[in-house]
Amino acid sequence: MPVSLIILAAGQGTRMNSDLPKVLHKVAAAPLLHHAMAAGAALSPDRTVVVAGHGADEVAASARAFDPEVTVVIQAEQNGTGHAVDQARDALADAPGEAIVLYGDTPFIRPETLEAMLEARARHAVVVLGFKAADPGRYGRLIMEGDSLARIVEYKDATDEERAVTLCNSGVICASSRELFSLIAQIGNDNASGEYYLTDVVEIARRNGLSAGVVICPEAETLGVNTRAQLAGAEAAFQARARTDALDNGVTLTAPETVFFALDTVVGRDAVIGPHVLFGPGVTIESGAEIRGFCHLEGCHVSRGADVGPFARLRPGAELAEDVHVGNFVEIKNAILDEGVKVGHLTYIGDAEIGEHTNIGAGTVTCNYDGVMKHRTKIGKRAFIGSDTMLVAPVTVGDGALTGSGSVITQDVPAGALALARAGQVNKPGLAIRLFEKLRAIKAAKVKG
Amino acid sequence: MPVSLIILAAGQGTRMNSDLPKVLHKVAAAPLLHHAMAAGAALSPDRTVVVAGHGADEVAASARAFDPEVTVVIQAEQNGTGHAVDQARDALADAPGEAIVLYGDTPFIRPETLEAMLEARARHAVVVLGFKAADPGRYGRLIMEGDSLARIVEYKDATDEERAVTLCNSGVICASSRELFSLIAQIGNDNASGEYYLTDVVEIARRNGLSAGVVICPEAETLGVNTRAQLAGAEAAFQARARTDALDNGVTLTAPETVFFALDTVVGRDAVIGPHVLFGPGVTIESGAEIRGFCHLEGCHVSRGADVGPFARLRPGAELAEDVHVGNFVEIKNAILDEGVKVGHLTYIGDAEIGEHTNIGAGTVTCNYDGVMKHRTKIGKRAFIGSDTMLVAPVTVGDGALTGSGSVITQDVPAGALALARAGQVNKPGLAIRLFEKLRAIKAAKVKG
Amino acid sequence: MPVSLIILAAGQGTRMNSDLPKVLHKVAAAPLLHHAMAAGAALSPDRTVVVAGHGADEVAASARAFDPEVTVVIQAEQNGTGHAVDQARDALADAPGEAIVLYGDTPFIRPETLEAMLEARARHAVVVLGFKAADPGRYGRLIMEGDSLARIVEYKDATDEERAVTLCNSGVICASSRELFSLIAQIGNDNASGEYYLTDVVEIARRNGLSAGVVICPEAETLGVNTRAQLAGAEAAFQARARTDALDNGVTLTAPETVFFALDTVVGRDAVIGPHVLFGPGVTIESGAEIRGFCHLEGCHVSRGADVGPFARLRPGAELAEDVHVGNFVEIKNAILDEGVKVGHLTYIGDAEIGEHTNIGAGTVTCNYDGVMKHRTKIGKRAFIGSDTMLVAPVTVGDGALTGSGSVITQDVPAGALALARAGQVNKPGLAIRLFEKLRAIKAAKVKG
Repeated sequence: MPVSLIILAAGQGTRMNSDLPKVLHKVAAAPLLHHAMAAGAALSPDRTVVVAGHGADEVAASARAFDPEVTVVIQAEQNGTGHAVDQARDALADAPGEAIVLYGDTPFIRPETLEAMLEARARHAVVVLGFKAADPGRYGRLIMEGDSLARIVEYKDATDEERAVTLCNSGVICASSRELFSLIAQIGNDNASGEYYLTDVVEIARRNGLSAGVVICPEAETLGVNTRAQLAGAEAAFQARARTDALDNGVTLTAPETVFFALDTVVGRDAVIGPHVLFGPGVTIESGAEIRGFCHLEGCHVSRGADVGPFARLRPGAELAEDVHVGNFVEIKNAILDEGVKVGHLTYIGDAEIGEHTNIGAGTVTCNYDGVMKHRTKIGKRAFIGSDTMLVAPVTVGDGALTGSGSVITQDVPAGALALARAGQVNKPGLAIRLFEKLRAIKAAKVKG
Repeated sequence: MPVSLIILAAGQGTRMNSDLPKVLHKVAAAPLLHHAMAAGAALSPDRTVVVAGHGADEVAASARAFDPEVTVVIQAEQNGTGHAVDQARDALADAPGEAIVLYGDTPFIRPETLEAMLEARARHAVVVLGFKAADPGRYGRLIMEGDSLARIVEYKDATDEERAVTLCNSGVICASSRELFSLIAQIGNDNASGEYYLTDVVEIARRNGLSAGVVICPEAETLGVNTRAQLAGAEAAFQARARTDALDNGVTLTAPETVFFALDTVVGRDAVIGPHVLFGPGVTIESGAEIRGFCHLEGCHVSRGADVGPFARLRPGAELAEDVHVGNFVEIKNAILDEGVKVGHLTYIGDAEIGEHTNIGAGTVTCNYDGVMKHRTKIGKRAFIGSDTMLVAPVTVGDGALTGSGSVITQDVPAGALALARAGQVNKPGLAIRLFEKLRAIKAAKVKG
Repeated sequence: MPVSLIILAAGQGTRMNSDLPKVLHKVAAAPLLHHAMAAGAALSPDRTVVVAGHGADEVAASARAFDPEVTVVIQAEQNGTGHAVDQARDALADAPGEAIVLYGDTPFIRPETLEAMLEARARHAVVVLGFKAADPGRYGRLIMEGDSLARIVEYKDATDEERAVTLCNSGVICASSRELFSLIAQIGNDNASGEYYLTDVVEIARRNGLSAGVVICPEAETLGVNTRAQLAGAEAAFQARARTDALDNGVTLTAPETVFFALDTVVGRDAVIGPHVLFGPGVTIESGAEIRGFCHLEGCHVSRGADVGPFARLRPGAELAEDVHVGNFVEIKNAILDEGVKVGHLTYIGDAEIGEHTNIGAGTVTCNYDGVMKHRTKIGKRAFIGSDTMLVAPVTVGDGALTGSGSVITQDVPAGALALARAGQVNKPGLAIRLFEKLRAIKAAKVKG
């Protein structure tokens, strides 16, 4: 059965106190919007429509970064959730199958929950996602009649008896696409705020003789973000779950509470992650690799047996093969390090390929930028790059070659060659003593003067 | 109405198990003493008197570092709080207006609370700061008669009925300066410990026909520090509040619990602060700047659009203009970086000025110390400093100039010039192979030998 | 009275979801096994027998790393705890005195507790370690008769009345070595799982007319590790206690919750430890030293008055004398830094000795590895190593010598000499401008092409 997603992402998020549209604030290094899109994407939807409003250009760009196929529609005026969904009408005019309405500020709905809603559609024309609230507060209440949903009642309109109900409305809704837009067309705005409420579709469906039902999920899934404190709370909730999942999957976390995962981090069994490790998007750590304390990783791949850190930064495009060693104060960007490469200390490797078992000395820099363009460095197998070698790209160092410490390498080095670019050492006896005497005299004169 | 502050800071703090005087232990990168002085300073006091005793020289120096105008008096023997305040008598002999007694080990009293005490002086000759204790334990109790404070009763002297009172004494007290010293002169030491208790002034005031009153503040404000565990608790309390305030002010904190603010940290709206960021004293981060994870900042200014880190250290005097980029393993000290300057990797910039849109290559060092004196480096606009350039100060690099990678720059470089200090590269074919063969032979011989 | 230890370490730890034997998972940077061995070692045992099974080679190696004198015996099949202890029979055949059975996955038993068990042996032939469980769950219950232990009853065999008992069995047991093995020989395996249970010795002892007794310790001591979540919990418990102990001992911890101690970390009074500091094994920090934020220390010694970090890494063999300064992005390994040495920025010092009051410039590297062997660097007193000096070991720099910035030092430098290895600077007027014009033209052509 084909599925379409409608993701509401038009709100301003005034309570965030931010110029950034609310759905672009991040949890686990990903915009809230991507969390919602990822949950929906697990259903392999035919079409995904994002309804943007405030900061629409930024929201559209972010949505497309996650899924280039997405359709972004604009809700020019914020006239309620029903009106927001209605903006997707043209985009889904001929869409067959199911439609699910999600929210860009509600990051934790699980794919399994959405699948349960699709299954419940066999029994009901409209399926609403509900949750049992520990503290129902001002949430809308789901009023049941047996297995059917009679209506959704807003807190302010609810009787005392209805307020005693703890089954609350998450806002997530599922119906056939055709039916959904048919129902939405019947929503009115004859209410205090003059807005069109998506929740009205339940009552309208019932009026039309259609059945409505409820799928219940844990309250934690329906967590919405309206303030920065809630955003921090969502981050904490995500991390708590990610840390528990990692432990359950056999990852060694010395100090789980100091490790921050991204939405898409993958860490293998028996990998060791030290304290104070930050994962940005796009990181894969294979089984048995070790990430020591104080590491910052994004868009990189660390293979079995490799060890990284402490104090290492792997940036997008860093590919570490098996048994690679990356030590302290080392940055790797857009570079492939073959099996057994060692980069121990104080080094920048960017836009490079390094062959297996090559050793990179401390203080080495791939000079990849000439002020205008970026260039690549290629180093062969079992080469030895002396400490403080500057590799001025584009440049190639052959297999088994050696560069002298402190050399600036501007020309290719053949395999097996020794490359030197270095002035000879001269010792000037007694000159250090005389020099310091002179400097001290100058300083003394200055102090007096 | 003029105000004088008397800040008691003479105690040894035996339970701290430290050689450092208690009031010099730090919370939020500032001595406890400074917290108390800062709260009082918000009232713009005419005079501030710090009563020092244990470690008086250190305490005096710290007090003067916060406020060069402060008067420090010495309490040679510790004969009680009344005796301590009495040491300020000469310093405030002719002081008009109000006097407030504060405590150097009680960092969280808010200026608003002190203002409320000053206002309450319209109704009472003596005003005491009280708090409703969740667990009153052995605190002194404030015994009220209607709106007036009848007396302060020490726990050990209290009846069961009095012990049931939860309104407790913080020790902070306010009266007219003249009245305060008049009352203090009447305090006796006819008690078990032979000390003069400041709390006795309430009873003495009442005996003299004067009215005493109470201002009540939240218990958290009156938190005093007597042990290192309490110090750590005070730090945690400060940070919890600072993090909440930052979120409320529209700052993005990815992982609030890992960020440590100083007493005077200023962070603008929509600034982004990553996990594991430490603020020392004197840091201002403008709106929209970004501080990535693992940064250590003190005495610096980061402007709008600038981004810093991860793994960056900004030391006192680092001034980053708009859109400056400071990357990983970079240290900036006492240096001005104009708009759009980029310092990406593994660099030390100290005692320098760098013009707008200049690019500093990886591994660059401003060699600012010659072993005797420090010197400055000046770099113009749109210059390009090649990787591993040593800038031996004092030295100037002109606008649009370029230094070759690996150069040691000891003389000024004119605008638009290319400066090179580099030996040419020589490739010696096959020599790497022969060299490694030789080294392996030596090693093998050693192992045998 | 001589004591023998029998430490059971044969289990697979299936619930850890790991290829690493359970007892080799670490808490406080030490394998669980070492924690148990350390507790026992405090009794100065005559003999220590570790019973290995799963991953026996790794377990044996780890046990010997802690104590080269240890005897490792193999339990080829896992037939219960009684069977496991019986594997030590030959190793302790002629052992006089006491035997204590400990568990390799139970890291927190204190030496004081074991001493109390030895003392209780004066009153009982068999002494069992018990604890009052907050939630007794499925633990075995200790059924007392007055001061004597009547029997240990497994949860599944217990009556309701017995299940109401909260005194539970830790499994730790003490008897004379001779008696213990005599009792074990009488254990049968006539039970559902066909295993030999050590707990049966109590009942057998009583049957033989011997008395059994109980020593009670806090439940926290008996914490066992069966899952990674429990391992993380054990780490958290260890750190919480270590942080409290450090504070009680007069250590200044700015943010205790971000500091991670190792089992053997020693920190002196009034030492200052900033936030986010990680201790590996073998670290001693003297009184009054300061470790700033973001430091990673292992196997090193930091003397009084020295300061380290932020962003510093001290590796095994780093010895910092008094008043040494190690700054940011600095790595020290297997090196002695004499009094007052300064290593401020971006430096790697490995396999070196540095004399007192020598200054090491930013970007210095001791090039200790030639691709085959490691070599040492010796630097004298009051020398000045210019920024970006490469010290190609083996090499010696004399007292008071000076190396020019950017020099590659391949030969020894005599005392008081100035060593330079540097090409002269050449400024080429206007060439930077022409070069960038050319590069921009190339780029533009590429973009077009």
